Amino acid sequence: MPDVNKAIEYARANKEKFLTDLQEFSAIPSVSTLDENKPDMQRAAEWVANQLRSIKMNNVQIMPTAGHPVVYGEWLGAGKNAPTIMIYGHYDVQPVDPIELWTSDPFNAVVRGDYLFGRGTSDMKGQVVASLKAVESIVSTGEAKVNIKWLIEGEEEIGSMHLDEFIIKNKELLACDFCLNPDAGMMGADKPTITTGLRGLAYFELKVFGPSKDLHSGLFGGTVHNPAQALIELVAGMHDKNGKITLPGFYDKVRKLSKKEREDFKRLPVTDKQLKEITGVPALWGEPQFIPAERVGARPTLEVNGLLSGFTGQGAKTVLPAYAMAKISCRLVPDQTPEQTEKQLRAYLKKNAPKTIKWELTLLNSSGAALVDSDSAGVQALAKAFETVWGKKPYFKREGGSIGSVVLLQKYVGADSLLTGFGLPDDNIHSPDEHLHLPTWYKGIEAFVHFFNNF
Amino acid sequence: MPDVNKAIEYARANKEKFLTDLQEFSAIPSVSTLDENKPDMQRAAEWVANQLRSIKMNNVQIMPTAGHPVVYGEWLGAGKNAPTIMIYGHYDVQPVDPIELWTSDPFNAVVRGDYLFGRGTSDMKGQVVASLKAVESIVSTGEAKVNIKWLIEGEEEIGSMHLDEFIIKNKELLACDFCLNPDAGMMGADKPTITTGLRGLAYFELKVFGPSKDLHSGLFGGTVHNPAQALIELVAGMHDKNGKITLPGFYDKVRKLSKKEREDFKRLPVTDKQLKEITGVPALWGEPQFIPAERVGARPTLEVNGLLSGFTGQGAKTVLPAYAMAKISCRLVPDQTPEQTEKQLRAYLKKNAPKTIKWELTLLNSSGAALVDSDSAGVQALAKAFETVWGKKPYFKREGGSIGSVVLLQKYVGADSLLTGFGLPDDNIHSPDEHLHLPTWYKGIEAFVHFFNNF
Repeated sequence: MPDVNKAIEYARANKEKFLTDLQEFSAIPSVSTLDENKPDMQRAAEWVANQLRSIKMNNVQIMPTAGHPVVYGEWLGAGKNAPTIMIYGHYDVQPVDPIELWTSDPFNAVVRGDYLFGRGTSDMKGQVVASLKAVESIVSTGEAKVNIKWLIEGEEEIGSMHLDEFIIKNKELLACDFCLNPDAGMMGADKPTITTGLRGLAYFELKVFGPSKDLHSGLFGGTVHNPAQALIELVAGMHDKNGKITLPGFYDKVRKLSKKEREDFKRLPVTDKQLKEITGVPALWGEPQFIPAERVGARPTLEVNGLLSGFTGQGAKTVLPAYAMAKISCRLVPDQTPEQTEKQLRAYLKKNAPKTIKWELTLLNSSGAALVDSDSAGVQALAKAFETVWGKKPYFKREGGSIGSVVLLQKYVGADSLLTGFGLPDDNIHSPDEHLHLPTWYKGIEAFVHFFNNF
Repeated sequence: MPDVNKAIEYARANKEKFLTDLQEFSAIPSVSTLDENKPDMQRAAEWVANQLRSIKMNNVQIMPTAGHPVVYGEWLGAGKNAPTIMIYGHYDVQPVDPIELWTSDPFNAVVRGDYLFGRGTSDMKGQVVASLKAVESIVSTGEAKVNIKWLIEGEEEIGSMHLDEFIIKNKELLACDFCLNPDAGMMGADKPTITTGLRGLAYFELKVFGPSKDLHSGLFGGTVHNPAQALIELVAGMHDKNGKITLPGFYDKVRKLSKKEREDFKRLPVTDKQLKEITGVPALWGEPQFIPAERVGARPTLEVNGLLSGFTGQGAKTVLPAYAMAKISCRLVPDQTPEQTEKQLRAYLKKNAPKTIKWELTLLNSSGAALVDSDSAGVQALAKAFETVWGKKPYFKREGGSIGSVVLLQKYVGADSLLTGFGLPDDNIHSPDEHLHLPTWYKGIEAFVHFFNNF
């Protein structure tokens, strides 16, 4: 009997134990944002470290950061010619408020029907345990074909605040061929999903200054350029009549979608009707030559995230404001960069801002776009594993947002992230009664066993 | 010796007494916005009523309103063929904070050099006393040629909150040919000024609704119309490239300026340099075919008074907002009306708002524009009086704002207001060390004596 069958057999035989381990992990209230849970953060890190040791990982360390520690472990026994895969996860969870809306204790995970209810069961202690148990199944019945590293952080729910420092400091330790990140979930219990792309971000604050103080709009209206008007004219001009972004050169580097990529997008099980229901808008909007999934996954945007000027309270105040502000952000796709985007925005403003006002632009936040090659060994191995377990080809999806760890690992370690996981869209993550669909979770463990075997 | 000379002689002989009376009036802390000064409001009203009785006015009443009372008085001895002039004023004053910045007690008005320092000395107890003393000078030395009514309110500094009810209820009592309102001041000690026009106002709140709640701009940006973007595109489109307002029919009723009116505007002693200094803007702005004074006085505007949408705090939040709001107001000139303007704005929105959002428009505040005929008997009489006293033609000016009492008296009594007064631009009204230029004030009393005599 080949090793993979033994490993699958092990996984099936140990379902109860796997669940008990997940319940034990979920019982630790590792809420990263609360000071009172600091000791629990340490306990959760130790729990992970002990698991890693129990599945024959070497060099297991709880590594301090300026915030919560990172758990590291490795098994490099497959040798230099085998690929090295890093598994990313996080052991921290969201707060449980409003606690009164929970049916049962969030930190005493219980099974009801097909589901395990408890904080972190889906996001993402369940996913971390699925990864651990897949590797446990392999190493308990044979030997892994690939080298494995683990990076399990404790600050994902608070924005991975210290992960950048940690990764920069430990570049060599973290060196790998690619990263498996099971924090992205799937589109439905029968819809195994691989997220191959994330958009980047360039987030700006644009300030427009007019008179030195707020003026009476009656006494000065008509002689002084209203900075709120100047601002909205500038920002409105950043799209043309057809919704195209007018920053000079904005689309120059945007990759054209291949026929295959467009087919993957088209296959995704998302309808316009669903999108309208989720968002509550009367009609969808966007570039008509692309379907919504393409617009979100593969097309750049320029959004107004915030506007502030003058009088915004109840009633009427006839002020001609001294100042107006817009928060503007661009979602970027390969091969756009935040640096280029800032240049393009500055060029636009220099060309279009009138002499009657002053403006100031600040780049507040930025990250590059990420895209994994669908033909890469990792994606192929994962797709094949999903086909083996679910009997169907997975969905290839791109997310419109960005994920801190993905950007950092790409930037400092040069490693692409394969985003996947076994959480479902209705798992109530970040909400009361978070739960995990256990049949899908068990399938997931088997899928990861196959994945590691597919190299 | 004709009566007017006697009256002027009386005024000159009684300078000391006039000043003492103004000091007595200014010593009453009639701050309308403070509850603790409620008894002082009554005392100030009684002071005015006693003055009116002392100068032979009849039917003197302190008339209650839902707020502070109005003082009324009349002398109708000139008969039905003579004009009836109503003198408008207010006995309330602004608070004195920050009190520590006053050189002397704001409610113990003292003379330093040519100035009387104290709260209300310029705005507008000094102007009320100037009117009282001009009439005193006339009635002490002869008889007035015109009928006189007085409306001295106690709520001007808090927005004339109950004046509308009062005027509506007392329409017949207040019937007059026109109103003399000395609350507008002059452009300089050597620049007697008559303000002949005020702009009207139509103040709106425009709300644009997108998704049913704030969305993640990464996950939905590109498929959902951002209401902040929709709002700014709609509002930006309310001006064309040349700054002209695009609401359909907006300029149809705007009166063309006559050659004489343009000459009056051109003569005004305001330079672009001064305007730039006052406002602190790098360059002035507005319709190039009009000078700034015309733009403020005789041209309508559409201003953005406030903007609010999405995230406006420090830093970056990648939100696609559910909602965006703009406060927008139009300054109106004869013969525009707020009602027409609202219709035009709704027509614009109906035509231009995309189907991807919902919008809601509310008219929050409105008032009509006011314009006094420069050839009217009142303006002519006042201009002649100013020429007699200052030896030069007065400036004819239009203000860009609106004044509650002017609008109400026009609307309910059908009386135009002649706006003038002897306050100077640097009198520190509403600020510490408010003061009155006494030589100008004495000239003003004489000018009003002549004014009443010029009919």
